[in-house]
Amino acid sequence: MNINKNYQNLEDSYLFSTVARKQREFQEANPDKKVIRLSIGDVTLPLAPAVIEAMHKAVDEMGTKEGFHGYGPEQGYDFLKQSIQSYYASHGTQLETDEIFISDGAKSDVGNILDLFSQDNVVLVPDPVYPVYVDTNTMAGRKIVYMNANEENGFLPLPDASVKADIIYLCSPNNPTGAVYDRDGLKAWVDYALANNAILLFDAAYECFVTSDDLPRSIYEIEGAKKCAIEFCSFSKTAGFTGTRCGYTVVPMELEFDGVKMNKMWLRRQTTKFNGVPYIVQRGAAAVFTEEGMAQIQENLGYYQENARILSEALDELGVWYTGGKNSPYIWLKCPNGMESWEFFDYLLENANVVGTPGAGFGKNGKNFFRLTAFGDREQTIEAVERIKKLLG
Amino acid sequence: MNINKNYQNLEDSYLFSTVARKQREFQEANPDKKVIRLSIGDVTLPLAPAVIEAMHKAVDEMGTKEGFHGYGPEQGYDFLKQSIQSYYASHGTQLETDEIFISDGAKSDVGNILDLFSQDNVVLVPDPVYPVYVDTNTMAGRKIVYMNANEENGFLPLPDASVKADIIYLCSPNNPTGAVYDRDGLKAWVDYALANNAILLFDAAYECFVTSDDLPRSIYEIEGAKKCAIEFCSFSKTAGFTGTRCGYTVVPMELEFDGVKMNKMWLRRQTTKFNGVPYIVQRGAAAVFTEEGMAQIQENLGYYQENARILSEALDELGVWYTGGKNSPYIWLKCPNGMESWEFFDYLLENANVVGTPGAGFGKNGKNFFRLTAFGDREQTIEAVERIKKLLG
Repeated sequence: MNINKNYQNLEDSYLFSTVARKQREFQEANPDKKVIRLSIGDVTLPLAPAVIEAMHKAVDEMGTKEGFHGYGPEQGYDFLKQSIQSYYASHGTQLETDEIFISDGAKSDVGNILDLFSQDNVVLVPDPVYPVYVDTNTMAGRKIVYMNANEENGFLPLPDASVKADIIYLCSPNNPTGAVYDRDGLKAWVDYALANNAILLFDAAYECFVTSDDLPRSIYEIEGAKKCAIEFCSFSKTAGFTGTRCGYTVVPMELEFDGVKMNKMWLRRQTTKFNGVPYIVQRGAAAVFTEEGMAQIQENLGYYQENARILSEALDELGVWYTGGKNSPYIWLKCPNGMESWEFFDYLLENANVVGTPGAGFGKNGKNFFRLTAFGDREQTIEAVERIKKLLG
Repeated sequence: MNINKNYQNLEDSYLFSTVARKQREFQEANPDKKVIRLSIGDVTLPLAPAVIEAMHKAVDEMGTKEGFHGYGPEQGYDFLKQSIQSYYASHGTQLETDEIFISDGAKSDVGNILDLFSQDNVVLVPDPVYPVYVDTNTMAGRKIVYMNANEENGFLPLPDASVKADIIYLCSPNNPTGAVYDRDGLKAWVDYALANNAILLFDAAYECFVTSDDLPRSIYEIEGAKKCAIEFCSFSKTAGFTGTRCGYTVVPMELEFDGVKMNKMWLRRQTTKFNGVPYIVQRGAAAVFTEEGMAQIQENLGYYQENARILSEALDELGVWYTGGKNSPYIWLKCPNGMESWEFFDYLLENANVVGTPGAGFGKNGKNFFRLTAFGDREQTIEAVERIKKLLG
């Protein structure tokens, strides 16, 4: 048996393990210091009461002969697909329920979707980048080209007509930079994709953090996108489902390559290689869209958004350049005094006892940048901000 | 963008849709007839009380700040891996917890494992076969060769030294035939794999139906298997998790090809393309292995086993040749009077108002065979048996 040798081209990332080791070593050497982590990419607030209630009810159903649910549709139950359809409609985007596929999370589907594409496609990703886009394509042996996201373009690169790419990853609001494309920016990408017979893989996992009415939450708000884009979304950040596992992928009926409907291909892939999301979890996810659920979710999002505001305001006061903070749980700041990101990491840890994530871990264009997140505790966020202001002020 | 053209080589299966259509049409034409389905591949009994209780507790945890679980380990929580380790040990197989990967079901992992293998491997599958083995390899463009499972070999084909294969699928107890390999049979396959540098993909999804002490439940009961086999298992049939979604895959540390540990490759695949099984579901699965859970699960399994016994006994009385029925929820019978499987399907539906699954849907060697399942209701199973005896007696 011959193994897939492309795995040997994967680079191991030591980003988060190195961050954890440095924090641990500092704490051991300084047991009296109270270290605050603003590096958390996970949510910290519990699930909303409406979700808890719906899951209890579903668990009870599963314990009775009448309410028991065995194999469900691989692509998800209609009750959840209809809720998502209504959610999109409330933001002005019309979808058919058959265009919505329920998944166990955006990470799985962002990787699995590649099954549908030939190996000889050229992949375009931004630098800095969420490493999953790169690793999943490296595993499949695809050629990857990078586009520069940097201070000049506000970490929102636009298409370069001289670069020929087939599969393009866009994440907006962006992880790790927090930058959000406006309509003109996304329109430029849709136009490029249509002109080049390319596909856009649009990661909308952070759409729920968008509050400005003029910013798009979905690629399908852009005309023509249904002919060139697949959208991935998740309940992870919307509703704190990081450990509950549910997301969805939109594959429009209009999306065709070589005369083949991608929707039909994805349905075939999912019915063959997936067996659906737990009934209990789908019931919990549907509760997010009830009036009660939405109000509770908004409260949780508001908590994180206020953390982001507190962090941004401090950086504004300090005159530090950054992206994100508004319409995003991430703040991506330029390290002060020309420091490199690992240098700034050590400086902040040692002098303010605050942990963030060095931008170098996301690509070469992150070398002088640093990520803070809004997923922490309020009091700790306020305390961290005071320490940072004292250090850099 | 170029699509994966291998999808065009997939054959659409109309097996279950045709079965459903024929049943519907018969029922519409004969509204007074009570049709009994012995074609169900899904479980019908509710989840065990111990599982329900554990999931309620986990849901409550997720609703509190202290008990909330966000991202978990992609490969599963230790508490569940340790329970599975103990379960294997109780049947005499020693595993390390790092050899056990928790999944959302055997179907997902049986497909996803192929990411680790090069496209140029030759795949060997039995005919008749669970179609997922064929379709997932067709999607990847691999060459597939078939081995005949038939009446002569009791639907348990043994290796043919003249056939060179790299990836071999074994399912025991088998879906659809219910046939179970003994130790000598599996030993022959392990020896073949070791001699040919091949890998065995061992689907043990029905191991919990094995009651004969002399039959193996795991490929690792065979010496040398840890050097050549990956095992897939599931809570779907063990504990009725078809709609709750949990399984596990065992990748031994000793398993190496080209000097590369498959365990390390699978860990890299899963951490990159998967985000773990819901915490709530893993707590439910762990409850299966408690003393209370095991007793409840055995009661449910006993119910299905008794259905299988009732069906087998009737076929014994009628002198019909079959495999399965013992150590398996499936009964795979030879259609009487030389009938072909779709012919027998119609005959049984029209004259006994009983629905089964035509063997032709699983491959050419199923042409004269027919599958009945033990997952139905007890009273209906008894009623169906009476009708079949009356018809064929």
